[in-house]
Amino acid sequence: MTQDDTICAISTPHGIGGIAVARISGINAIRIVDNVWKGKTLKEAISHSAHLGTIVDEQGEAVDQAVATVYRAPRSFTGEDVVEISVHGSLWVQRELINLLVRQGCRIADAGEFTRRAFANGRMDLAEAEAVADVIASSSRAAHRIAMSQMRGDFSRRLTSLHDQLLELASLLELELDFSEEDVEFASRQRLLDLAQEIHQVVSRLASTFATGSAIKDGIPVAIVGETNAGKSTLLNRLLHEERAIVSDIHGTTRDTIEDTIEIGDTLFRFIDTAGLRDTDDTIESLGIERTIQKISDARIILWVIDATEDTGTISRGAQRILPHSTDGQILIVAINKTDIPTANTTLLSSALKGTIPDDVMTVDISAHTGAGIDTLEKLLTKASGTTDITSGDILVTNARHYEALTRATESIDRAIGGLRSGLSGDFIAQDIRETLHHLGEITGTITSQDILTSIFSRFCIGK
Amino acid sequence: MTQDDTICAISTPHGIGGIAVARISGINAIRIVDNVWKGKTLKEAISHSAHLGTIVDEQGEAVDQAVATVYRAPRSFTGEDVVEISVHGSLWVQRELINLLVRQGCRIADAGEFTRRAFANGRMDLAEAEAVADVIASSSRAAHRIAMSQMRGDFSRRLTSLHDQLLELASLLELELDFSEEDVEFASRQRLLDLAQEIHQVVSRLASTFATGSAIKDGIPVAIVGETNAGKSTLLNRLLHEERAIVSDIHGTTRDTIEDTIEIGDTLFRFIDTAGLRDTDDTIESLGIERTIQKISDARIILWVIDATEDTGTISRGAQRILPHSTDGQILIVAINKTDIPTANTTLLSSALKGTIPDDVMTVDISAHTGAGIDTLEKLLTKASGTTDITSGDILVTNARHYEALTRATESIDRAIGGLRSGLSGDFIAQDIRETLHHLGEITGTITSQDILTSIFSRFCIGK
Repeated sequence: MTQDDTICAISTPHGIGGIAVARISGINAIRIVDNVWKGKTLKEAISHSAHLGTIVDEQGEAVDQAVATVYRAPRSFTGEDVVEISVHGSLWVQRELINLLVRQGCRIADAGEFTRRAFANGRMDLAEAEAVADVIASSSRAAHRIAMSQMRGDFSRRLTSLHDQLLELASLLELELDFSEEDVEFASRQRLLDLAQEIHQVVSRLASTFATGSAIKDGIPVAIVGETNAGKSTLLNRLLHEERAIVSDIHGTTRDTIEDTIEIGDTLFRFIDTAGLRDTDDTIESLGIERTIQKISDARIILWVIDATEDTGTISRGAQRILPHSTDGQILIVAINKTDIPTANTTLLSSALKGTIPDDVMTVDISAHTGAGIDTLEKLLTKASGTTDITSGDILVTNARHYEALTRATESIDRAIGGLRSGLSGDFIAQDIRETLHHLGEITGTITSQDILTSIFSRFCIGK
Repeated sequence: MTQDDTICAISTPHGIGGIAVARISGINAIRIVDNVWKGKTLKEAISHSAHLGTIVDEQGEAVDQAVATVYRAPRSFTGEDVVEISVHGSLWVQRELINLLVRQGCRIADAGEFTRRAFANGRMDLAEAEAVADVIASSSRAAHRIAMSQMRGDFSRRLTSLHDQLLELASLLELELDFSEEDVEFASRQRLLDLAQEIHQVVSRLASTFATGSAIKDGIPVAIVGETNAGKSTLLNRLLHEERAIVSDIHGTTRDTIEDTIEIGDTLFRFIDTAGLRDTDDTIESLGIERTIQKISDARIILWVIDATEDTGTISRGAQRILPHSTDGQILIVAINKTDIPTANTTLLSSALKGTIPDDVMTVDISAHTGAGIDTLEKLLTKASGTTDITSGDILVTNARHYEALTRATESIDRAIGGLRSGLSGDFIAQDIRETLHHLGEITGTITSQDILTSIFSRFCIGK
């Protein structure tokens, strides 16, 4: 990849619309656009100024009336000269404009190449650049909030402060090494240990936020489980406000898992409708049940739906089937469904439940059919998601690459602590500190390879 | 509809992309954006200037980093104060931004409302405004060229010149009326007649371009006809560069008509694959054949596909079935297909053709299977479309509303000519001139109703 060339792409979503915007970035951006521009020359345009004109092809034929906005280096998104051309959002015009720019010497930008140039030109670090893609992909307020915070550098500042602490630790160690032969006073091992432990705590806490952070980004997984015909699919449709799952009175209608996401409050939930748990001879249904058990293990929240018109035996049967598959850290919500039916006996069931499930499990009476109690259920889900506990200053790691780097950094600093504790030579400890620095540097991109960059930016959309 | 309010919409295509642009237009556009803007206040921004800042909600939470470009009335698309906000193209951000703007006092724009305001504020006439939608929808160079020409006022200028001529005619008639009692010299009836005939010629010529104009806009209709199993569907797929039609060796595979468009050269063609013509007892196939006959009548070009491996009897049978359905003004192209098969006898067929079809019919040897001769066929199609005869100064009417108005104007000026010829009183003739003016005024929008405007602009996309 070279930065000598000038790149172009349509930056707006693909399709027909009122307007579309082409972005051109590079040393020749203004000259190239001027070649296809009928109107006041852009060569003399000041930065951040918009100009009405006409895009004309080599034959002088008008491709479109357009507004060109000029951003001069370094005061642009990429840090290079940038021209944004706003044209009518016709597919034909968009295609012709890009073809024309390419004929005039532009190269079509790779996915994420504008952001990659912004990173290369020091306009943002790698964590901030990655957050640009997260901002674009975010589909709930909570996910968007985390991505915005990261894009605006909150995570990077925390990493910079860790970096500074690690450098301090390294320089204290060097001091120890340099003067180890002499009788000089230097930092006590205890002070080094305190500092290392402080760093360890911050790094490992950041790593530990990944479970929640990634769940918020992709949607908190909620497994809807229960006996066949308990109304799980009806409840899914109710929660999604649509007819997503096929609902019928036939036991075992849902044979495979159905997933869909919806934002409740500020949080995206990923609801997983599972095949009803029952003994069955049907092979396909058995496979469904196997998958259900897998989905139960993967979920953060288990939403157990009980048919309130069934007898109390249902509860113990269900509990035997479901509870063994739940794991630590999962939250169980019990929804007693079909409360709209006169024969429903919720009091009896509730008291039967008490003996079966832990005391702190949340229960709620609902009717998936009428919608009664769904508000309360949504509140319980929001509470169970843990996102209400997050305050705006909190940094949540949502990126698997960052999580891995933080995990490795935790391991390195762990070794350093072990070394300090066991009185190991400063040389060895310094090596662990350097490794920690390396792993943190991978996140912000101070230490990186072209391969990693290519892999990161290829996940971006074209034109960003 | 009031113009006292400030409207907003996402103007870029719907979906996720690098960036999305919200447009805000109206007297409070700048004030409203300033309310949600963290950055240099836009109140003092000069027209056509772009500013980096942050969109913040009522709680001060950042919705996105954004670039706001300010256009001050009347130097904007709508003629009102306009702010365009470029944000990250996340669906969540787009939705939140519009919600925020609405909470701050914007109204979500109706389809085409920005362009409607541009028309209302005299930034463009109605024909030019309608061309904006045509530019956005255009899917070939030829269609785009017509729409651009209309958007830039070529058609409107022609109408204005007609309008002036009609006013001249009306004033000469009035002169005649005013002084009819006296012995004053006034314009001879012959001169009035000459002028009226000149106007008639221009108006009726404009109306006559509609057939070509609308065909270019929607695609030149080409009916692909022939015996069953002549290879019509294979040819369609070849022309479309894709697997659009189901192809098989079974006679009568295509039972209904299949249509698709593709640009060849600068022109959009609408290819219609039809059911093969043959005698059949199959009810569904019979219906298909009936539809084929309808499609033959509607087409501008009939592409008759002949299987070169069949005997010469095929030609006369086909000719009997096809030629009776073709009409004046249609162009027939005969494609002798399957020339790649050794048993094909194209020489024999060609000579058999000579006796059957008019001399000026274009014939071409092809193989839909190998692609041989397709280039030549495409050249013949382009020639037959008549679009190569259009020069850049030509005005083509593509809009049914304009065509109707021109037709009615032709009728009115026709009556005026009749009146002049038969020595009718100037009062009656002046009435016909006024009617002609009225119909032309409907096109440019000097004479219009809110209902017509609503109907026109409702076909626009949101945000334009």
